[in-house]
Parts: sequence; C-alpha cells; structure tokens
Amino acid sequence: MIDITGVLEPYAKTPTGEKISLHKQLVERLQRAILSGRLPSGVVLSSSRTLASELGISRNTVVLAYEHLAAEGYVIADQQGTRVAKLNLQSEVLNSDIETKEKPFTLANRWETFSDVSSQSLPTAALLAPGLPSLTDFPLALWRRSLERAVKQLYRHSLASKDPLGEQSLRKAIAVHLQISRGVQCDAEQVVITEGAQQALELCVKLMTNPDDTIWIEDPCYNGAKSVLDIETFKIIPIPVDKEGISVPHDLWLTNVPKLVFTSPAHQYPTGSVLSVSRRLELLDQARKAGSWIIEDDYDGDFRHLGSPIASMQGLINNSPVIYIGSFSKTMYPTLRIGFMVLPKQIMNQAAPVLSKLLRSSNQIQQTALADFMTSGEFGRHLGRMRRIYRERQKVLKTALVQHFKQNWILGGSAGMHLTLKLPVSIDDKYIARKAQELGINVHALSTFYSKAQSNHSGLVIGYGNTHKDKIPEAVDILSKLIKFKEYKF
Amino acid sequence: MIDITGVLEPYAKTPTGEKISLHKQLVERLQRAILSGRLPSGVVLSSSRTLASELGISRNTVVLAYEHLAAEGYVIADQQGTRVAKLNLQSEVLNSDIETKEKPFTLANRWETFSDVSSQSLPTAALLAPGLPSLTDFPLALWRRSLERAVKQLYRHSLASKDPLGEQSLRKAIAVHLQISRGVQCDAEQVVITEGAQQALELCVKLMTNPDDTIWIEDPCYNGAKSVLDIETFKIIPIPVDKEGISVPHDLWLTNVPKLVFTSPAHQYPTGSVLSVSRRLELLDQARKAGSWIIEDDYDGDFRHLGSPIASMQGLINNSPVIYIGSFSKTMYPTLRIGFMVLPKQIMNQAAPVLSKLLRSSNQIQQTALADFMTSGEFGRHLGRMRRIYRERQKVLKTALVQHFKQNWILGGSAGMHLTLKLPVSIDDKYIARKAQELGINVHALSTFYSKAQSNHSGLVIGYGNTHKDKIPEAVDILSKLIKFKEYKF
Repeated sequence: MIDITGVLEPYAKTPTGEKISLHKQLVERLQRAILSGRLPSGVVLSSSRTLASELGISRNTVVLAYEHLAAEGYVIADQQGTRVAKLNLQSEVLNSDIETKEKPFTLANRWETFSDVSSQSLPTAALLAPGLPSLTDFPLALWRRSLERAVKQLYRHSLASKDPLGEQSLRKAIAVHLQISRGVQCDAEQVVITEGAQQALELCVKLMTNPDDTIWIEDPCYNGAKSVLDIETFKIIPIPVDKEGISVPHDLWLTNVPKLVFTSPAHQYPTGSVLSVSRRLELLDQARKAGSWIIEDDYDGDFRHLGSPIASMQGLINNSPVIYIGSFSKTMYPTLRIGFMVLPKQIMNQAAPVLSKLLRSSNQIQQTALADFMTSGEFGRHLGRMRRIYRERQKVLKTALVQHFKQNWILGGSAGMHLTLKLPVSIDDKYIARKAQELGINVHALSTFYSKAQSNHSGLVIGYGNTHKDKIPEAVDILSKLIKFKEYKF
Repeated sequence: MIDITGVLEPYAKTPTGEKISLHKQLVERLQRAILSGRLPSGVVLSSSRTLASELGISRNTVVLAYEHLAAEGYVIADQQGTRVAKLNLQSEVLNSDIETKEKPFTLANRWETFSDVSSQSLPTAALLAPGLPSLTDFPLALWRRSLERAVKQLYRHSLASKDPLGEQSLRKAIAVHLQISRGVQCDAEQVVITEGAQQALELCVKLMTNPDDTIWIEDPCYNGAKSVLDIETFKIIPIPVDKEGISVPHDLWLTNVPKLVFTSPAHQYPTGSVLSVSRRLELLDQARKAGSWIIEDDYDGDFRHLGSPIASMQGLINNSPVIYIGSFSKTMYPTLRIGFMVLPKQIMNQAAPVLSKLLRSSNQIQQTALADFMTSGEFGRHLGRMRRIYRERQKVLKTALVQHFKQNWILGGSAGMHLTLKLPVSIDDKYIARKAQELGINVHALSTFYSKAQSNHSGLVIGYGNTHKDKIPEAVDILSKLIKFKEYKF
C-alpha cells in the first residue's frame, strides 16, 4: 500500500465555474493518475481511511470513489486491498493528441457526387427567388396564438404515446381541406403527416420500390424530386413535358413499365403546364393496368390564379392508383416543414405499420397548432389574402417582363408563385443566374431543371412570392440588361 | 351548338355545407357531363350568353368556366366555338369502381421480413415497462412555460431559414451539459440535433457506410440498433457482452475490420454491464488503427445510481474515433423525440453539408424550449429529482425480486431505469412475457435481444421508470407466480 496523494493532480477549477462534487473530483484525479501511468498497474492504493485523512475529506467519499473506479475497471478490489488494474497503457492511444493522418475520414461512396446545392437556408433578402412565399404577409401573431393553444393542449398522456402517422386533428383538417378545395377523395385515415413534401416523396420510394426499379420523372423536373432519387440505384426515365404536361410516348408503357411516375399535374414545375384531362385519364388507365403508382405532387395547387383550382388527378376517378402529396412550406412558411401524403385506401393496411416505423413526427405542437389554424378558418382566410397578393405581384412581373421580352417567352402563370422566362438557347442561363445572384436577384437557370437529353433549353425561373410589387420592375430591368448585354456578345 | 342544360346534373349540396362558388359548381357539372359521355367529344357547347341566360347566372361566370375547362383540356375553344375535346372514355378507367384485383399492392422487398414489433405507442398504463420514464413526475407546467417562451421567440426571420443541424441555442446547451456531466470533449459546432437517438444511428450509417460493410453490434443488443441495420445489406457481427461489457475476440480486428462498432459503454442494454476502462482503451486503440468508428450510445448515462456518472468513452482520449449519441426520450419524455450526436471535429467539414441535406429539423419550437429548459437550470433540477425517484423504485424492485429469486439472477442497476432478471434456460421467457403482458405487466423477454448464436439465454428485462413504488411488489409477485408455475411444468 502506498501513499498516493503525491501523484494526484491538484484540484482543477472548471472553466464554467460549475460546482463539481468532491466525489467526482476525487474519481477524476485518480483516473488521470492511473491513465497517465503515475499510478502503475498492480499498485495497491492507500486504504480509504488513510486517504480520507490525508485529503481531509470524509472516508465515505473515498469508499464511494474506489467503488466507482472498480465499477469502471480502473482498480480491482480484493482481500489484498484496492489495486490498480492492468491497462494497455503502452499503446499510443492515450498520448497521441494528433489526428490519425494515415486513414483520413471519407464519407460513404453514395455521397461522392453530392454537392451542396440545395441549401436549406433560403435567401430571404434576395429578390425574385422562386419557392418563397411572402414572409412579411404571414400572419405571425395569429399563428403564435394557435401555437399557444397547442402548448396548452400538450397533456400528460401525450408525453409517451402519439400517432406516428400524425396528429389526428391535423389529419382530419387536411382531409376536409383536400376534399373541398382539391377534389381529393380521402378520409383522415389515409392522410399521413410528413416533414415536407420531400419526406413524402422519400417515403413513397422507400415503401414501394426495389433497387433497379424504373421510375419516370418529368423533364424538366423539380430538383427536390431528383435529389430523392439520386442516392439510390433506380432506372430513371425523364419524360418530356409540353404545354399539356407530361407527354408519355405510348410504347414506353410496354418497354419500360414504371414502378412510380412523378408528376406535378396542377402546375408543372418549372414550365407551369397544366396536365390536360385526356392525358390524366390516359395516365390513370395505363398505370392501373401496369400496376404502377402515380405520385401527384400538388405543387402550387392552392394558389390557382385563373378561375377556381384545378381538381386533383387523385379524385378524377374512384380508387385511383395515385399518391397525392402536398406541403405547407408555401402556403404557410418553409421552416414549418409540414407536408403530407394521401395514400390509396387499398394500401393503407400494409403501409401503416412500415410508416409507423419510418416516421417520427417530432413536431406535435406545430401539428396541433396547424390543425387549429385550419379548423378556425384562419388558414382559409390567409390563403385568400395571399392569392390576391400573388395575383397582383404576378401582374406586375408580367407587365415588367413584356416591356423587355417577347410575350411568348413567358410561360406559366395559371397558378403558384413563379413565371418562367424562355430565352434563346444561345444565352447561357446559368451565367445570367450567377450574375443576377451577385446583384441580389435569386432567379434560377431553367436549364438546370432539364435532363442531359434536353440541353437545348435556356431561361429563367422567376419567383414573385416574396418580392414586393414595388421592387419587381427594377429587378426585371436589371435582368433584362444582363440578358441583353450577353446577347450582344453572341 | 346544342342546348347543354339538359345533360347537366342538378346542383349538389356538399356534405359539409361548405360554400362553393357558382363558378366552381358550373365547372364541375360540365366536367361530369363530359366525363360521363353525356356531352360527347366534338359537341359544340351553348354560347356563354345562351347558357348564362338559361341557367340564370352571369355571363362572366360561364366565360370563366369555359376558360377553366379549356385550360384543363376538357374543351377546345376556336372560331367554331367551344367544343368538347376528344377524350379516351372508352377505357374502363372511369367506370371501374372496383379495385384492380389482378395486381395487388405489395410493399418493396425490403419490408418482407418486417414485423411491427416496435410500436411507437408505448403502453403507458402497463407496469414495469422498460424504457419509459416516470410520466407523472414530469414537470409539465414548467415545460409548458419553456414552450411558451419558445413560441414568443418564433420571429419572422426564422420563417424561412434555420440551421438544419439544429437550433444554435440547443446545440450549445447540450455541449455544456455533456462537457460537465459526461466528460465529453466537444463544442456546440460538433453537436447535431436529431429526432431521437434512433435517427442519429441511422445518420451515422447513411453517412459512413457502404453496402456490404462490416458492422459490429453488441450481443445482446438494443433492438433499435438492430432495426436500423435490418433494411440494409451489411455484414453484421454480434459481439458477446460479459460483465465488463463488449468482449471483442482479438483476431476479429484482423479478420473482420468493422466500419462501425455500436456500443453502449455506460450501461449496456439490456445486461447493465459497464464497459471496463481497459476494454475502452483497447477498443479506442484498435479502432483508431483500423480506421473504424465507435458509436457510443450513452444509454442511461444521465441516470447513474452508484457514485457519479461514468465519464464517456468519447472524452477518454483526445480526438477519439467516437461518435457520441444521446437522447432526451428518457430524461424528458418519449414523444419529444429529440436526440443528438457529437461528431469528431475532423469529420464535421465533410459531414455538415450531407447532414444539412438529410436533416429537416421540423421542431424548432421544442428545440428552443429545451434549450431554455436546460440553461434555466430546470433540466438539471429535473434530473436530480428523477434520479432520487428511480433509485427508490430500483431499491423497491430489488427487494421484491430478492424475495422470490436468487440474488445473482439480478443484473444491472448501476444506472438507468431497468433491472434484468436472468432465468434458467429451461424457462421460455417469451411465454412469460406474453402472459405477463396479458396481465398488464409489460416486461420484455431477454432472449429477444440476443443473436441466434446465443440462444441459451432466458430472462426478463424489468423497467421501474414509470411504475410507482407501491405497485412494484405486487407486480413482481405476479411475475414470480408466472415463472414458478412454468418451472413446475418442466
């Protein structure tokens, strides 16, 4: 038995000034002495009585510290007393402060081609950014009130159990909203709450597809859909989009039967096409015969500017082979990140247990608040207000564009929060978009939405959701100068 | 041009009594007439003036309805007037109310072996359920106050952008807590907020592993870890656990280098072993040499019952090859579903953009509230209160068990909210667990945590977190009767 007080480091103060118990301090000083080799393997520690009197602390503190060290394997307690255990201290592991240089960290292979394009931080100050709703017009005070009511509704029984498919009140509110405003045939049981439309897409893919399955996407296509598919091994077939929406070559149903077809029939992104009813019927018919599933991403469905909203494809026929997807990122605000999907009745039984495993639904309070916001009528009033604001902004944007560009260069406008400006192919739209961004104008290059097969496209996707109408003409003026300057060079 | 009023259905009332505009009603009546074939392809519709006067509505409403139908492709408007478009109505798609019987829905192959064991709805009323904290002792009123403060902190600028890795305030609060109470070496930048420990595990796997990589797990192992790995194609090697924790055969480092090693060193689940310091050093040393990563799931780390908490493996050496994972499901409540991981500094640069893509972090308000709860000191006080409650409950449970079973059948107890009762292998623990569940006692069968290679285990995992001490002895009494009854039969 040796006097070990000499090898213990002095008490150290914590940087934060937190109180640390005598017990914990003693344990840590002993651990450091052992790990540093100052108390070598086999050494018998002072008896608890001795150490306690030497350190001027209670014997019980020392006894507990020794017990703690024994539990962790630093010491072994037996008839001979408390001995330091045999530890592998000759290894460099304890002394090397250096990072292991030989084996640098590499991410999994699937991230090799990953580039951080879709940053989640949207540039709120930028002008003409697509995808952003008007943030200054969001009724924050009313929304806070719904949130406060939701906090009051957090009851003790909901601390341990909840429906993984989403808060019942929200599933019901969404079902009612979709039935009335989008003609979707569903009840609350078919509605699954997700973290944005993106997660809904991911879940469809996980739920339904096997590796090497064929998936059809629109060409051009919403980049979010592409990024879901990027990290898996599917056969992706881009299908061209024209004025009537996605245009499927008829023999493709024979040669390349898809497991999933991604579509945005109400307002195709970014072209703004509306899928015609004859193509809808054809798509539904073929999909049903082939056992394929259509994913209807109801992009901008709530912001129809011409007449009443176009009804969903999901509700066009009974028992349609359609999964309807939507989100509140544009009707409410992006960081809310609440979306949903409506699954066909016939697949709910099989899908529900799997979804219960995959979904976590950590945002009870936001979900309850959104249900409150919808059922109290605030959501409907908010949509009406925003529709008027967006119509006005779109009108101002169109007027400004027509002053600089040909009328038939302007696509879309029947719904949503963006217009697409087609440009001559000789103009490098990526260059224009980059230059515009440097000037605080965050339009997107149209060509980035197309597959490689369709490289003969140039244009700009111009959002008007979060840009005040007074700022639109000047921003368009700058865009036109950038484009014309570029044009002269060609 | 024909008079079309005769083929239109009468106005229908909506079941919900919602107001539907005349415009929308007219559009839908015309659509139904076309889809049903009552207005066949090629038919020229009444002029807008005629139809308006016949229906007694404004002409403008009819003009807009015709425009809407043209936009959707139901009609074609040209010099000859408005004609019904050619639609593929001979297909059965419109008339078939029947579900497609030939091609029944099947989930993706990866779900074939999936069984719905880990239901998210925890049986809050059940006795002795492992994994549940005391719900009646959760300070709900204080927590609501933190939530209310978080609602007030939802500012307009946070509607569109946030840090996908988690609210800065929470990342900071967790870093401080881990440094002080768990000896973790980290700063806020290394902390990533997840939806529970489960998502943190999933992210590690996604981030770091390639198909066919080798992964070591503990045997027995927490089922959540297994379920993360289930759906991928890894080489899973179960490593036996003894009283000193995971016991790696030395040559395994040569023959089967792991990409990841899943461990729960502070309190192994379900055996309750504490990983000894010599094994910790060995594991760290070998992992660093092999370029492997250790996942330290700090299961129950906050509820140490003997002495002060055992420090984390992550902080044992500098620049350790460890990803530290934790959750608030047990220290707060399960449906909060906030977890976190601490990534090594050297991998943050590469990992952050990928994580930004994978994380959605939809629970801003809960995250801000938790940061408030922690920095205000409420979390620390809550942990202290709960530790005292759990210690008392554990003592009562041990006392009750000892009356019926041998002392050395009882494993664990140094931390957490459960004890494990070993049983003779002749007893079918799954049968006992099933029978107990029928009687409202939700203990888990120990054998279900083991790999196939270790089928010679029987026992019960008994939680005391959410069972009042007065109810424990009677529940144990029932368990002992179930077990003894069974024993007699063998």
